Amino acid sequence: MPPTTRIDGAAAPAAPGSTASLRVANQQRVLGVLRQITHEDDPVTQADLARRTGLAPATVSGIVRELDAARMVTTEPGRGRRGTTVRIARSAGLVAGVDFGHSHLSVAVADLTGTVLAEVRRPLHPGHDHRDGLALARQLLDGVLAEHTHAGEHLRAVGLGLPAPITDGVVRSSAILPGWVGIDAAAAAGEAFGAPVHTENDANLGALAEHRRGVARGTASSVFVKISSGVGAGIVLEDRIFRGSGGTAGEVGHLTLDEQGPVCRCGSRGCLEAYASIPTIQQMMAGQLPDATLDDVVAAARGGNVAALRSFEDAGLHLGWGVASVVNLLNPDLVVIGGELARAGDLLLDSVRLGLRRHALDAVAATPVLASTLGERASLVGAAILAAEQVELLPG
Amino acid sequence: MPPTTRIDGAAAPAAPGSTASLRVANQQRVLGVLRQITHEDDPVTQADLARRTGLAPATVSGIVRELDAARMVTTEPGRGRRGTTVRIARSAGLVAGVDFGHSHLSVAVADLTGTVLAEVRRPLHPGHDHRDGLALARQLLDGVLAEHTHAGEHLRAVGLGLPAPITDGVVRSSAILPGWVGIDAAAAAGEAFGAPVHTENDANLGALAEHRRGVARGTASSVFVKISSGVGAGIVLEDRIFRGSGGTAGEVGHLTLDEQGPVCRCGSRGCLEAYASIPTIQQMMAGQLPDATLDDVVAAARGGNVAALRSFEDAGLHLGWGVASVVNLLNPDLVVIGGELARAGDLLLDSVRLGLRRHALDAVAATPVLASTLGERASLVGAAILAAEQVELLPG
Repeated sequence: MPPTTRIDGAAAPAAPGSTASLRVANQQRVLGVLRQITHEDDPVTQADLARRTGLAPATVSGIVRELDAARMVTTEPGRGRRGTTVRIARSAGLVAGVDFGHSHLSVAVADLTGTVLAEVRRPLHPGHDHRDGLALARQLLDGVLAEHTHAGEHLRAVGLGLPAPITDGVVRSSAILPGWVGIDAAAAAGEAFGAPVHTENDANLGALAEHRRGVARGTASSVFVKISSGVGAGIVLEDRIFRGSGGTAGEVGHLTLDEQGPVCRCGSRGCLEAYASIPTIQQMMAGQLPDATLDDVVAAARGGNVAALRSFEDAGLHLGWGVASVVNLLNPDLVVIGGELARAGDLLLDSVRLGLRRHALDAVAATPVLASTLGERASLVGAAILAAEQVELLPG
Repeated sequence: MPPTTRIDGAAAPAAPGSTASLRVANQQRVLGVLRQITHEDDPVTQADLARRTGLAPATVSGIVRELDAARMVTTEPGRGRRGTTVRIARSAGLVAGVDFGHSHLSVAVADLTGTVLAEVRRPLHPGHDHRDGLALARQLLDGVLAEHTHAGEHLRAVGLGLPAPITDGVVRSSAILPGWVGIDAAAAAGEAFGAPVHTENDANLGALAEHRRGVARGTASSVFVKISSGVGAGIVLEDRIFRGSGGTAGEVGHLTLDEQGPVCRCGSRGCLEAYASIPTIQQMMAGQLPDATLDDVVAAARGGNVAALRSFEDAGLHLGWGVASVVNLLNPDLVVIGGELARAGDLLLDSVRLGLRRHALDAVAATPVLASTLGERASLVGAAILAAEQVELLPG
């Protein structure tokens, strides 16, 4: 099994059954709670920490003192009846998120709660060599770090997202970024960044980000469907990215909708991707709006162009069919629609919901289908969260 | 989230962080290992237990002494260089498995490893009232217990399988057993059996049984597709039954294969179930072999009847398409084909594999598709295992 991301970010488990291991385990438990408290949340008090860890208040206050001395946390005296609050410190470490899209590169720096402190985005040619891509990423990262960090703050890990299936750090066949196929991305990026790199498929990262910080926060299971030049999905089950046996879970884009449909690059026919993606929308509109961008077609639809409206409607109905297969099989709490095509908003989503109702079992036909709140930053934010959660806070 | 079945069968977790909780936790750890050692496995020695629990040999031998005194385990002196072996004792408790099929009822008694000690099977009318079904189950269970158990062995729990989606113990809409719809099966059966009852969908139980004892043993993730009067699937992920948000995960039978296909009782069209089930096979052969049973059609196919061969081939190709959707989305280690239709063996399975190859991504197209080794006992064995794993071995 490939490693899975844990929300509590615990390091190696304490040696089973030993009393001596309890102290480190208790520190980990406190830090595990703290790294779930983002900057958007109210800070927690020591009393909150005792409640959420199940540890005695005196134990918590001892641990907080130790962690404060080690510059792992910052404390702030309470006001009024509220006790001293505790946060994980930037000096505990920083992480980077790096997201390669079909034609862009984004880089972010975040703290160990995965909260992004600064980010940049650059266009990038889809045919770039992976070495050039990594060199540019390193250059952007150095710039962000120089501008936004202080002495004593150091990079602990990098999360790297790629629009391809990835197994054991190696990029498998991908028509989207040909300059990366067969590359051990984890190793190449580790060399480029000089820090441990955790690689992940971009849709999985989007799913992680929406689950931890976006519209799926608070649910146990959600599916993030990313529709851009292709269609992929990331699956979060019981709060963790689900990757499957070989790391390829979530390939919703190649569900067969019509066995007599167009032959796909994957070797099958009538795949969902052939009915719902940006190229498909552009192709449907080629006669009326030649060379239109996605935004052109969205604008036309909003302006009342019935053909443009129909192109989103048909893509949405087919997506709904694919989403129905997902909810029939997985019964998630929520489905999130992301990627560039999500810019079409309800032009697309209303039809996705209709397609879901038509193709799903009654019991799951009303599964909420919501637009990504992190938008096109979802995979980047997910890369930062992935890195943050992989950092071992203390030696085990 | 509905409760999930854990392989280690651990009871309530020890109070976090307390030293005092370690002793009970360590006993649980030993029992957790022991209940995975079935009668088909070699018994474990105290040295094996120390290795598999990570506990010190002296700690293990103290725990074994205590558990032996409490009649929770039996020990047997070693022979030659092999030390004393330890097994969970029948006097630690027994469980029952009860499986309601479309037209049969099976009852089994098992020990706390889930190993079946005795079982019976009776035909049952599909339209039976649930009270009559439970009364018969109780009568069969009493008979098996009277014949096969000794003084001091007592029933700790019952696992109950039904061919329907079940949420919080309540049977949701099912065309298969109309006399159970809307019934709180867990409560009704608890009254009938006078023991705690754990209810579960029959395909989920088949998946659990194949994972713990059958062809999927040793894999982390597997999907069990049960094809009888309908088509359903049970999903095991990371060693546990995966039920989804509302308990309906695994509804492979209602994947849409053709949106213009026949209208289904589920309200959709062209569902997999319409192309691959026993009634479908019978219907395909109605002109040539009117009133044929499944076994008649299997016999005809084995005798060279090309129409009978074609009926299994077409059902298999459609099943393969459904299985392809499952492996594209979940990327399991293994797919198991069970239920009555699996009696067709390679007449069906060769086509399932071909359908899988045609519709799945290349990376997962060779996912093994194997016949259930537990056959039509799979759900019954799963019911016994479910009950055994839910028994709390010690107060927490």
